[in-house]
Amino acid sequence: MSYTIGLDYGSNSVRAIIVRCSDGAELGTSVFNYPSGDQGILLDPADHNLARQHPGDYIVGLEEATKAALAESARKDPTFSADLVIGIGVDATGSSPIPVNAENEALALQPEWEGNLNAQCWLWKDHTAVEEASRITDLARKHRPEYVAKCGNTYSSEWFWSKLWHCLHVDPAVFDAAYSWVELADWVPALLVGERDPKAVKRGVCAAGHKALYAEDWNGLPDKEFLAMLDPKLADLVDRLYDKAYDASTPAGMLSESWATQLGLKAGIPVAIGEFDVHYGAIGAGVDEGTLVKVIGTSTCDCGVVSASKAVADVPGICGIVKGAILPGYYGIEAGQSAVGDIFAWFVKHVCKGDASTHEALTEEASQLKPGESGLLALDWNNGNRTILVDPLLSGVLIGTTLHTTQAEIYRALIEATAFGARMILERLEEYGIPVNRIVCAGGIAEKNPMLMQIYADVTGREMLISRSSQTCALGAAVAAAVVAGSEKGGYDDFKRAQAAMTGVKDESFHPQPEGQAVYDQLFEQYRLVHDAFGGVNQGNLGAVMKALLEIKSGVRKNGVIR
Amino acid sequence: MSYTIGLDYGSNSVRAIIVRCSDGAELGTSVFNYPSGDQGILLDPADHNLARQHPGDYIVGLEEATKAALAESARKDPTFSADLVIGIGVDATGSSPIPVNAENEALALQPEWEGNLNAQCWLWKDHTAVEEASRITDLARKHRPEYVAKCGNTYSSEWFWSKLWHCLHVDPAVFDAAYSWVELADWVPALLVGERDPKAVKRGVCAAGHKALYAEDWNGLPDKEFLAMLDPKLADLVDRLYDKAYDASTPAGMLSESWATQLGLKAGIPVAIGEFDVHYGAIGAGVDEGTLVKVIGTSTCDCGVVSASKAVADVPGICGIVKGAILPGYYGIEAGQSAVGDIFAWFVKHVCKGDASTHEALTEEASQLKPGESGLLALDWNNGNRTILVDPLLSGVLIGTTLHTTQAEIYRALIEATAFGARMILERLEEYGIPVNRIVCAGGIAEKNPMLMQIYADVTGREMLISRSSQTCALGAAVAAAVVAGSEKGGYDDFKRAQAAMTGVKDESFHPQPEGQAVYDQLFEQYRLVHDAFGGVNQGNLGAVMKALLEIKSGVRKNGVIR
Repeated sequence: MSYTIGLDYGSNSVRAIIVRCSDGAELGTSVFNYPSGDQGILLDPADHNLARQHPGDYIVGLEEATKAALAESARKDPTFSADLVIGIGVDATGSSPIPVNAENEALALQPEWEGNLNAQCWLWKDHTAVEEASRITDLARKHRPEYVAKCGNTYSSEWFWSKLWHCLHVDPAVFDAAYSWVELADWVPALLVGERDPKAVKRGVCAAGHKALYAEDWNGLPDKEFLAMLDPKLADLVDRLYDKAYDASTPAGMLSESWATQLGLKAGIPVAIGEFDVHYGAIGAGVDEGTLVKVIGTSTCDCGVVSASKAVADVPGICGIVKGAILPGYYGIEAGQSAVGDIFAWFVKHVCKGDASTHEALTEEASQLKPGESGLLALDWNNGNRTILVDPLLSGVLIGTTLHTTQAEIYRALIEATAFGARMILERLEEYGIPVNRIVCAGGIAEKNPMLMQIYADVTGREMLISRSSQTCALGAAVAAAVVAGSEKGGYDDFKRAQAAMTGVKDESFHPQPEGQAVYDQLFEQYRLVHDAFGGVNQGNLGAVMKALLEIKSGVRKNGVIR
Repeated sequence: MSYTIGLDYGSNSVRAIIVRCSDGAELGTSVFNYPSGDQGILLDPADHNLARQHPGDYIVGLEEATKAALAESARKDPTFSADLVIGIGVDATGSSPIPVNAENEALALQPEWEGNLNAQCWLWKDHTAVEEASRITDLARKHRPEYVAKCGNTYSSEWFWSKLWHCLHVDPAVFDAAYSWVELADWVPALLVGERDPKAVKRGVCAAGHKALYAEDWNGLPDKEFLAMLDPKLADLVDRLYDKAYDASTPAGMLSESWATQLGLKAGIPVAIGEFDVHYGAIGAGVDEGTLVKVIGTSTCDCGVVSASKAVADVPGICGIVKGAILPGYYGIEAGQSAVGDIFAWFVKHVCKGDASTHEALTEEASQLKPGESGLLALDWNNGNRTILVDPLLSGVLIGTTLHTTQAEIYRALIEATAFGARMILERLEEYGIPVNRIVCAGGIAEKNPMLMQIYADVTGREMLISRSSQTCALGAAVAAAVVAGSEKGGYDDFKRAQAAMTGVKDESFHPQPEGQAVYDQLFEQYRLVHDAFGGVNQGNLGAVMKALLEIKSGVRKNGVIR
């Protein structure tokens, strides 16, 4: 019997799971909540856009979570032993770059930079670099259109170069002190394999390609001439980053003696290359060509793959199309919504606030409502719009409130808004020839909220499957570990075989109901009108929107039972 | 010493005040809450548009409130006696028509109609007759454009004929049983003077002109030919309504023996003609040519007067321009917002819900915010838009929410939205040559919420004066009573003298602050864009709205103290 470990570095915690290679069974699991800041996130009350993390939390969490998961595995199955672990895989949020010194140590862990927010890990959801992103976009469109052609012609404030450049603007001392910058997804594997030279850290093409403008087409990272247009210091830095990035067929290295001792594992087992959480999540949910995996959490990522032997269109507004980003041999395609669960959490925590207004209570009440019955329509842009408008400066909208509008009606309208956003992405992919024959959802919200899944099925007109594993991201990392371990050691020689054995979907799925679908088709027309108007796509006739909502509402109330 | 009584029939209660004629001092006051329904309003859970009231509450309240106010006056001032009361004035909500039998008794008080919602008083805010209003509007625009020219070219679902016609549609038995219909503002005075013939009830031109399409220009109510286009039964009914309506220079009659006995007053004292609450409220707040009186409550009414010797333009979107409706010898001009306090109440009661989220707490927190700091913009249309779009089917909008938006920020944005709505009205009046040199506010919200008043001053760029009396409407009714009593009995011979003695403004007023004004000018531009787009006026570039809000927000946060 053989096992691998999947480590999933999320926004608020790190999770470790021990997975049996033969069937993907998850033996032990443990979550370590980052102790620093607000639920693990360092905030600046003066700037809502700032979100950082303390790298020390990642190291403590690595040890605590792994040991606890191993211990639980041993408790659950007396035949289990840490010696049976044949590999480790790591996924993480991103782009979450960490400034490091020449020994690959996080600056934030050096006494002189302790407590400096700019020396921490710049968490994916940090939006301080909006202006830098916009200038990179402008310069690239003008001078290197190929750089942004695969990421919707827009470079994001959440991404690598925007953040580094912003650091240079606001805190040049930190920027100068940083020998290099390493993505969290690469930094943890480098730590495990004991790589102390930032330049030698095996970087994943997932982070490099999606966030740092890396591509084989132009031999790696952006050229120095382009970077110098931003700032000569960025052009200098590129020599201290990396020349080549790797897909998941190459390991990050082998587990170091010291970490093996610390964790109680065998030294020398392979550590898979790091990928973003949702990319390994897509693997853990069984992604293949024609399958779209939706990881629905605080935000949403939609991942698909297309064989690298085919031509893939540059899909406008899609976050990224990167060869090898998810599965080796395939283009990885990533789209997403900047906030989904975060919007519901905001509504409960900041707007409702009352003790009685829990997610459970609101879901219970909202599930009694029929589609269209509230007369409400919302835009899911409280955290901007990632796909298809690629604009972090957009904001939320709620239309159709009366003097009778209830909390639960708004709650449901917010869920519906995220479903409409999901449909916009689906339509965009198909419009550009990326087939979606099957949708597999993963993430806590997908598993725990049948009302939401039914709304998604009704709004998109598609069956919604649910990934079998509750820990799809960590499972995908464990799958990658099984592949880098290889069949000889009890793993697999390719992802196809590994996924077939280790991943799957639940028996229960959600089918679109014709009645709800018909109403949501009408509401989606209005959503698209409002989306396009506020998104600056085109000005439709908004003068008819409120009347249309009212007509839908009246129709539903007349035909259905009045509640 | 002489006194008059002002009776104010509001949406949830009736108030009586005893006013000294010499100086307007309010001696005794008493409020009687209507006991029926939800805070005095009969609702239908299956139809949010329905709002009725039980006429029995009006009669009980008349006696209870008057007696209590008289008793309090005697307690406060031993020289007071009920014999010193020289007249009674009555104001009421409207259009609130009551179906009556041939003896002018409310149908709802007859055993056979007890409990029938359609036999009750159809409260002003009842919106069940939307379809009828729209058909009346269409027919009038086509066949009698002069009928709607003075009410913004749109006949409202809140008004007399819409309600009667809707009753005929949904409950012909009630319609057939109704010998006549009498506005609440006319029905209470008729009760006091003992008028038992509906046809002989002295009707106020205020209700007749504003709500029932009455005008001297076409010799009274709409002609039968027009009414027959609606329904022949409406044409028949007009014979049992009235031929002539009166301004406040004519009394409704003299207090009957039986009511004099019941209330402990002298029989034969004059009862003033009934007017709508805000119209007498305008008088109580000191309205004259150039003064706009804003009565700010659950909804808002804006009242002005222009000498009847002048030509007044047909102002598009204004609720009504009616000769004699407020002051004799002047055109009464009425505009308004369908919901103001109601929107704040909705937010607290239906959205926040939590025990800690009171108006006081939200106001306290919202007053710490600077104009523009929240990045939010709302439309004040939760109950439709009365002026200038005259469309009850419009609904509320909130734009600019993020994951950090707070309750207090939304609360303030809703207040600002009502201020922007108020500015739209002001600009429309001035655009059509109706001067506004002075604004006097009245109503509970104006008195109790200095933050709101400052926002109104900043948004409109005008000084906001506050009426001295807290009971402006009842005071105005008492002023009218003093005028119909005349100087010989201790009253006055005209409104000018009566207002000069009995009304006034408070010392404290609110002046626009340049800083807030500058920010609100920018926000108002965005409000107008969104208003015009959703109101169907014209399609502006909404794609720039969220960016503009963000720019304003960033500017304020950079320049000001970050809270």
